[in-house]
Amino acid sequence: MASKVTSTQVGIIGAGPAGLLLSHLLHREGIDSVVLEARDRAYVEQRVRAGVCEQPTVDLLDEIGLGTRLHAEGLPHHGFSLRFDGEDHRIALTELTGKSITVYGQQEIVKDLIAAHAGPPIEFEVSDVDVHGIASDTPSVTYTDSGGHRRELRCEVIAGCDGFHGISRRAIPAGALRTFDREYPFAWLGVLAKTPPSDEELIYTHHERGFALHSMRSPEITRLYLQVAPDEDIAAWPDERIFAELRARLATTGGFALHEGPVLDKGVTPMRSFVAEPMRYGSLFLAGDAAHIVPPTGAKGMNLAVADVVVLSRALSDLLRHNDSAGVESYSDTCLRRVWRAEHFSWFMTSMLHVDPAADGFGRRLQLSQLRYTASSTAAATSLAENYVGLPFT
Amino acid sequence: MASKVTSTQVGIIGAGPAGLLLSHLLHREGIDSVVLEARDRAYVEQRVRAGVCEQPTVDLLDEIGLGTRLHAEGLPHHGFSLRFDGEDHRIALTELTGKSITVYGQQEIVKDLIAAHAGPPIEFEVSDVDVHGIASDTPSVTYTDSGGHRRELRCEVIAGCDGFHGISRRAIPAGALRTFDREYPFAWLGVLAKTPPSDEELIYTHHERGFALHSMRSPEITRLYLQVAPDEDIAAWPDERIFAELRARLATTGGFALHEGPVLDKGVTPMRSFVAEPMRYGSLFLAGDAAHIVPPTGAKGMNLAVADVVVLSRALSDLLRHNDSAGVESYSDTCLRRVWRAEHFSWFMTSMLHVDPAADGFGRRLQLSQLRYTASSTAAATSLAENYVGLPFT
Repeated sequence: MASKVTSTQVGIIGAGPAGLLLSHLLHREGIDSVVLEARDRAYVEQRVRAGVCEQPTVDLLDEIGLGTRLHAEGLPHHGFSLRFDGEDHRIALTELTGKSITVYGQQEIVKDLIAAHAGPPIEFEVSDVDVHGIASDTPSVTYTDSGGHRRELRCEVIAGCDGFHGISRRAIPAGALRTFDREYPFAWLGVLAKTPPSDEELIYTHHERGFALHSMRSPEITRLYLQVAPDEDIAAWPDERIFAELRARLATTGGFALHEGPVLDKGVTPMRSFVAEPMRYGSLFLAGDAAHIVPPTGAKGMNLAVADVVVLSRALSDLLRHNDSAGVESYSDTCLRRVWRAEHFSWFMTSMLHVDPAADGFGRRLQLSQLRYTASSTAAATSLAENYVGLPFT
Repeated sequence: MASKVTSTQVGIIGAGPAGLLLSHLLHREGIDSVVLEARDRAYVEQRVRAGVCEQPTVDLLDEIGLGTRLHAEGLPHHGFSLRFDGEDHRIALTELTGKSITVYGQQEIVKDLIAAHAGPPIEFEVSDVDVHGIASDTPSVTYTDSGGHRRELRCEVIAGCDGFHGISRRAIPAGALRTFDREYPFAWLGVLAKTPPSDEELIYTHHERGFALHSMRSPEITRLYLQVAPDEDIAAWPDERIFAELRARLATTGGFALHEGPVLDKGVTPMRSFVAEPMRYGSLFLAGDAAHIVPPTGAKGMNLAVADVVVLSRALSDLLRHNDSAGVESYSDTCLRRVWRAEHFSWFMTSMLHVDPAADGFGRRLQLSQLRYTASSTAAATSLAENYVGLPFT
């Protein structure tokens, strides 16, 4: 049965923030793209993932006219708390760096991007996606569309924005890719609770019982996390146990009143660091989680995806409009510089705040000294803050 | 045979920088002390150890009138170089912190302290030193003096300034002391060469073959270090091999001319971190290497000893002159705060600059990202610099 053949300049696999934003940025440059997505629209618009937008991400969304709802509904944060030894030590992001972050769910950005989508319609619910000819300059993507028809999409380049488990990275010959990873001896048990946040700011807590994080989704919904074992069974955590553990870890010498409420959702997320190098193979470019994963502690995952596609859209504009390949040649190196900075920062935040069950006494003392120093040195707090609010896009 | 009995207020074991400086500071407060030292005067005046004085150490020596020769002969440094990927990245200590460090050998400070010593003469070449009654407030030290006579020194407190291998720390019951340590999978091969330094500043070099450090003792004498295996046999390193390895690691893309010259001395120093808690047991107070060891990368060892005895001299002054025990009660906690900061910094500098033979690719990439970030961020460079020049004494 012959496939129906269509063509575009850039075939984009995946309608997460990376793929959708790339399509949007390319459209602004007059470059045609087609976005293919395995899930349906409702799924991607509801998929809860990252919730913190760095300053450079917010600036970019403003610049391309997509910041309206973010500013109306998102929660700007000018600082957060490092809590340890039962005391709060505020990291004054804005005082230290002049910048801030905005709590605005990834799924909200996805909704905004889908609403603003221009060009050929996003193809949701595609299946059996495969890429061909990626070592050539005439690659293609084959897939089955939502109506069950086989399709072939011919393009000049392919952008693999289909996440860690997607097909894009795996299409690259094993010998052409070097991977780096680190698994952590803990996971996050995350809870969404129907109660106003207990504090206006995020609270990153180091406690001998384990890390805890107080965060929020909205003025009515609290997001809370607990460090647990990597293989933790969520069934062992009835709501009462979760709140009791949160109370124990978030306790302060001055007294901290944790707001409790009905649990809307809970789950365990493993922690991992992963990088694939290079981020390009021939005419296939990887962006976002397809190329790298960070543990959530530094809130860098979605922001790295945004940084990748900013670099990629410029590079593809130079290539496809001006026949200038310098940008695509340097794409991987440019992105990886920022990726490794974020990997280091995410590892650093994770290591400083969590209890490593394998740590010896020396390691635990170093960790406490690091926390105290970060809380007492303007230079150290500024270093933490500038990474957290996001170093400038290159 | 009956011992000859003498008495003093503070019995000080060890005539290194810690013991001698403590005696000097106590004398200024009108407190009597006796210093006991196992070696002879020539040995302690020639013993080559640390060479970098932090700003707070220099300020203290100035304050007590012992800075004259240090300023005449020491070499002030306002920055050093981080060298990696064949490029130099200057850490501008003075621009970043307003402070500087001074290269001035520990043995020179020892000479200055011995020359300025007041009160009962330092007893060199003592042997069979032991402490008694340290759980009481009538402790004593027994020893054999340089003339072979048994002696008993009765005192109100004892200061254990006799280094990592000394008897003081071991006199504390095992159950009363908690120790922390870390051994590193490498050592330093150090060389003293009769040739002017190749650069005015210190060069801390990260190279895939291992760490290297260009330093100096004087305008005519260069000090050079190479990372080697912990069990390295110095016999395997003829001078030609040492210089060939230094040339390879210190090479820059712009070309670096290493000055070579006759080797005056060479040896292998193991790297270790160690802390004993608490630093006080009854009437025995530990100071300097007797209580803690750092790897030499951060140049903190002697400076920590100075900080300890500054705190201890104030505490003993309050106790012995004003019968106020608050200072001795908090001595250990006060010192340990600074000790752990220095332990963390020394571990950080060591980890960032050395090649860990057990590191995986992820670890090596993180290390490179850390170096690049430190070289490019004012906040990160300031954090490094403020630790290096020395945080204020508390």
